[in-house]
Amino acid sequence: MKLGLIGVGLIGGSAAAAWRAGGIRQVIGYDRDAQALRRAHAHGLIDTVAASAAEVARAADLVLLAVPVLALPEVLREIAPALPAQTLVTDVGSTKVSVIEAARAALGAAFARFVPAHPIAGRELPGVDHADPQLFAGKLVITTPVAETDRAACARVEHLWISAGARIVPMDPHEHDRVFAAVSHLPHLLAFALVAAIAAEPDGAHKLGFAGAGFRDFTRIAASSPEVWRDICIANRTALSAELRRYRALLDHLQAAVDGADAPLLERTFAAAAAARRQLTTWEGE
Amino acid sequence: MKLGLIGVGLIGGSAAAAWRAGGIRQVIGYDRDAQALRRAHAHGLIDTVAASAAEVARAADLVLLAVPVLALPEVLREIAPALPAQTLVTDVGSTKVSVIEAARAALGAAFARFVPAHPIAGRELPGVDHADPQLFAGKLVITTPVAETDRAACARVEHLWISAGARIVPMDPHEHDRVFAAVSHLPHLLAFALVAAIAAEPDGAHKLGFAGAGFRDFTRIAASSPEVWRDICIANRTALSAELRRYRALLDHLQAAVDGADAPLLERTFAAAAAARRQLTTWEGE
Repeated sequence: MKLGLIGVGLIGGSAAAAWRAGGIRQVIGYDRDAQALRRAHAHGLIDTVAASAAEVARAADLVLLAVPVLALPEVLREIAPALPAQTLVTDVGSTKVSVIEAARAALGAAFARFVPAHPIAGRELPGVDHADPQLFAGKLVITTPVAETDRAACARVEHLWISAGARIVPMDPHEHDRVFAAVSHLPHLLAFALVAAIAAEPDGAHKLGFAGAGFRDFTRIAASSPEVWRDICIANRTALSAELRRYRALLDHLQAAVDGADAPLLERTFAAAAAARRQLTTWEGE
Repeated sequence: MKLGLIGVGLIGGSAAAAWRAGGIRQVIGYDRDAQALRRAHAHGLIDTVAASAAEVARAADLVLLAVPVLALPEVLREIAPALPAQTLVTDVGSTKVSVIEAARAALGAAFARFVPAHPIAGRELPGVDHADPQLFAGKLVITTPVAETDRAACARVEHLWISAGARIVPMDPHEHDRVFAAVSHLPHLLAFALVAAIAAEPDGAHKLGFAGAGFRDFTRIAASSPEVWRDICIANRTALSAELRRYRALLDHLQAAVDGADAPLLERTFAAAAAARRQLTTWEGE
């Protein structure tokens, strides 16, 4: 089976490596960043360098789209006319509703062979140089097939993720976007915001020099790719906006509690959080 | 040298163990939580169990106050009449201005022998059962002596921290409180708030079930002691309030950017954060 990889970043490069265990024999890759493409080839993640997304689509049995989510509509339009009749398409986007809409609009009849998926894995250091075939071992992959999605296509993509060590959880795309707005997109935005706020202060660098382990954990995700997370925040803005609004309302209360030295309110909020955090069941260990 | 430990939680228990390397031969301890006190004795962290804070003070060459910061004024008033003429007092509070004020008010002439200190170390699992003599190895300890502070007393306390593997950084107490409002107190409040906000949603438990590594890092500090952090937020409310207000103003802008799909503003903010986060010099490794 020949994989066509469009977007050779951390996730795409890691998937191309990890899926070899599931029967991928050859990988043809394209990225508009020529340097990333060369490095992916040098690392042995792709066997053949293509000159365009359409060239990848023409040559592949399965196309993996691993570009920032706002770049997906254009890439889908580029590959649509080039897709062979049996070729499958899948993605790794962190948002699903807008990706599915873009695929439905671009792919026509081939939309039945589009399998929307989201591996819950990553690391804060982006780029193909940090690609790792073990990135998905023990992690979840959410698939969000819709009524039109071909079941055999879905099973084939799921098989590849399982071969990479992941566990599949099917989910409704709208539910997916609400869940990950809360537990992934909002925390990324908050972590970026904290580091940006401190760095913008006149003595920000001095303050950051005293960051301890807690700050480092809290802000580790703020080293993630700005472009990837800009796209995610916009693609999932409806769900993210609701979560952010709810969070800001709580911060308004906490500001009043700090200013008014309202110890009981602070303790109630912190205790509710500590209890919930300590109860987090670990599906990947901590 | 005989150490008197008042407050046998994670930090007090760890310091009592770590300071043995610096010449502490005996430890007498007190905690109003009788069970914690018994466990500290059972773990060998303290040699003698006292019936009160005053009894500890009477018996010690050095008193280490390791209670939540809002409990310090009362404890200082309790020990003041019992302190022998040469006995030193130090603390581990995460805020310094209010602690110094309380010590000045309570200790009278003995205030010269009070050494305000703050070890930048901890873990998210509180309590004496998680005490660890290696907790301070490679970490910073901020000391914030004031004009009245006896230099020999300060040097003696610093020697104990150095023997525990820590590095000393002297700092003005007001500066300390501003720095740690930004890089410690605010992130704790934000992490507690995020977990509390999600847990309070009707489907909060379902959402938390999909928390990935990023969420776990971001919220690890939300498992910290609610009482300790309630006290810190109130004791340092002036500096924390200013940081929180600044942060909320940035979130207002980011909410507008998300709602208005303002990609350039999101990217600029995220890129500034990612650059600053990646540049964090590591004095304790990551």
